[in-house]
Amino acid sequence: MMKRILVTLPITEYHKKRLERNVTNCSFQYVPLSEVTIDMVQNSEIIVGNVPVSYISASNNLELLQLNSAGADAYILPGVLSSGTILTNATGAYGKTVAEHMFGIMMCLQKKLHLYRDDRVTGEWNDYGTVTSISNAIVTVIGLGDIGLYFAGMAKALGAYVIGIKRRKSDCPKQVDELHLMEDFYEIIPKADIIVSFLPNTPSTYHLYNAEFFSKMKNTGIFLNGGRGSAVDQDALLAAVQNQDISAAGLDVTDPEPLPSEHPLWKEKNIMITPHVSGSYHLPETLDKIVEIAAANIENHLAGTPLKNLIDFETGYCK
Amino acid sequence: MMKRILVTLPITEYHKKRLERNVTNCSFQYVPLSEVTIDMVQNSEIIVGNVPVSYISASNNLELLQLNSAGADAYILPGVLSSGTILTNATGAYGKTVAEHMFGIMMCLQKKLHLYRDDRVTGEWNDYGTVTSISNAIVTVIGLGDIGLYFAGMAKALGAYVIGIKRRKSDCPKQVDELHLMEDFYEIIPKADIIVSFLPNTPSTYHLYNAEFFSKMKNTGIFLNGGRGSAVDQDALLAAVQNQDISAAGLDVTDPEPLPSEHPLWKEKNIMITPHVSGSYHLPETLDKIVEIAAANIENHLAGTPLKNLIDFETGYCK
Repeated sequence: MMKRILVTLPITEYHKKRLERNVTNCSFQYVPLSEVTIDMVQNSEIIVGNVPVSYISASNNLELLQLNSAGADAYILPGVLSSGTILTNATGAYGKTVAEHMFGIMMCLQKKLHLYRDDRVTGEWNDYGTVTSISNAIVTVIGLGDIGLYFAGMAKALGAYVIGIKRRKSDCPKQVDELHLMEDFYEIIPKADIIVSFLPNTPSTYHLYNAEFFSKMKNTGIFLNGGRGSAVDQDALLAAVQNQDISAAGLDVTDPEPLPSEHPLWKEKNIMITPHVSGSYHLPETLDKIVEIAAANIENHLAGTPLKNLIDFETGYCK
Repeated sequence: MMKRILVTLPITEYHKKRLERNVTNCSFQYVPLSEVTIDMVQNSEIIVGNVPVSYISASNNLELLQLNSAGADAYILPGVLSSGTILTNATGAYGKTVAEHMFGIMMCLQKKLHLYRDDRVTGEWNDYGTVTSISNAIVTVIGLGDIGLYFAGMAKALGAYVIGIKRRKSDCPKQVDELHLMEDFYEIIPKADIIVSFLPNTPSTYHLYNAEFFSKMKNTGIFLNGGRGSAVDQDALLAAVQNQDISAAGLDVTDPEPLPSEHPLWKEKNIMITPHVSGSYHLPETLDKIVEIAAANIENHLAGTPLKNLIDFETGYCK
């Protein structure tokens, strides 16, 4: 039977050629996400892209859902996918774009560029005093997937001492000076000048960064979240910055998103917020990488060979 | 004769011990710059720190003036120093602090963090679209002293292709992929994604970055100035950003300083301005390095051995 492949990415002719190159006996349908209908989703064996969860409703036709995101939280909830559907994500596509974005926020906060920027409105020539350097910082990266490793590599390349924290035992990656498991969490926190989290939204990460966590950070420390907003107790974070228990925070993710315009996090000058833009297609090469992952997985699925980036429904991570 | 040494740096006991360690037959006087008087300056054989030019008036007592800055513009003007006075600067102390600051501004502009920051006031959740990456950028560094080389090293460590431009022929430093002389200036500009200048204030650098220069830059290009404000024709820069001949600019130095609050540069959202704070003592280790240079030069001067960081009065650079 001719398999129907629905692709909802904003791709070019070049990308289409790549997807179709080694595929026979399939029909490709390219539809912008905003124009996708329930019928299109229900009538596809393979979908590439984060189609609305409500359109899927455990479709029995759906054999493979290849997400364009690294996060898979919405798709692993019970009842969304039929038990026969394979779910894969785009881990590997976002390392550079998310890591660089968070690294930029880190440097901003270290150099107080956020405060200097605020003075643009009045044209004031204020001096905000002492800054810190990445070159002799202790940087703790929590979550050592593709994004965390890229961030670690950047920090190490500029002189930082990098401590990685992950869930499962492994050899120490070359981007990291010292590797720990989550059980060492509270031992590591007080040492770090910079703590950056790339954890996904799972039950075990919910409000992991709470009042106790922030109380153990250095009061000169900077906290960064490039994973999911639900990992942070935002009230506790706000209090920690306001009370100068930590020096500053940078968030590309919040809970909820968008963060309501009247939310108190916006009011604290030493918190930098960006509207979940570190990933997506903001860096053009990200799309190339997603297409490459999707093309390989479509080919693997059709050939019955092992797929890349299979999601474990229990953890929301890659298997 | 007992030589009188006036030190105007904001130093600690530790620093005093370092300065006095190998020095005999001298009297040290430590006075904060704001409390220095004309008499103190006139009655010193050695001065460490940027004392007011008007206090010096070609003092014949002054044997050595060790500046705490890299720039020496005000002190090389005719009539400031007696012909017998040796002038040394603090080149080598500012590489990391200035380079990291400008690198932070660069990453801000690449990731559009300045625009996201501006939305803090209203709490808006806007998406400013495509960003760029340092990892595949062509970065041109103009002025390859200590600061330029540090910046080049950071850019190269994160994947950029680095083109260095300097005045005098030399071997290609390891931080640079391709080395050119100033005569190749207009050939190199159109290739660069990022152009960063660390040039001092000299007659030959005045308005080097003018309308012609900006017209040759890529329209996606970012221009950074961490040297002296006089090198930039600010009207031409403003026009270039407003007309999108270049994408953005970041300035830690302006002409004049402070930049008047009503100056139109403040109004352009794609220009980031910081109030000449990249250097000074904002990074605490800078002061350690300045003290080290000063201590060595005091010892060298007293021993009659060659000094470090001697200023060439014709160029304002180190010899």
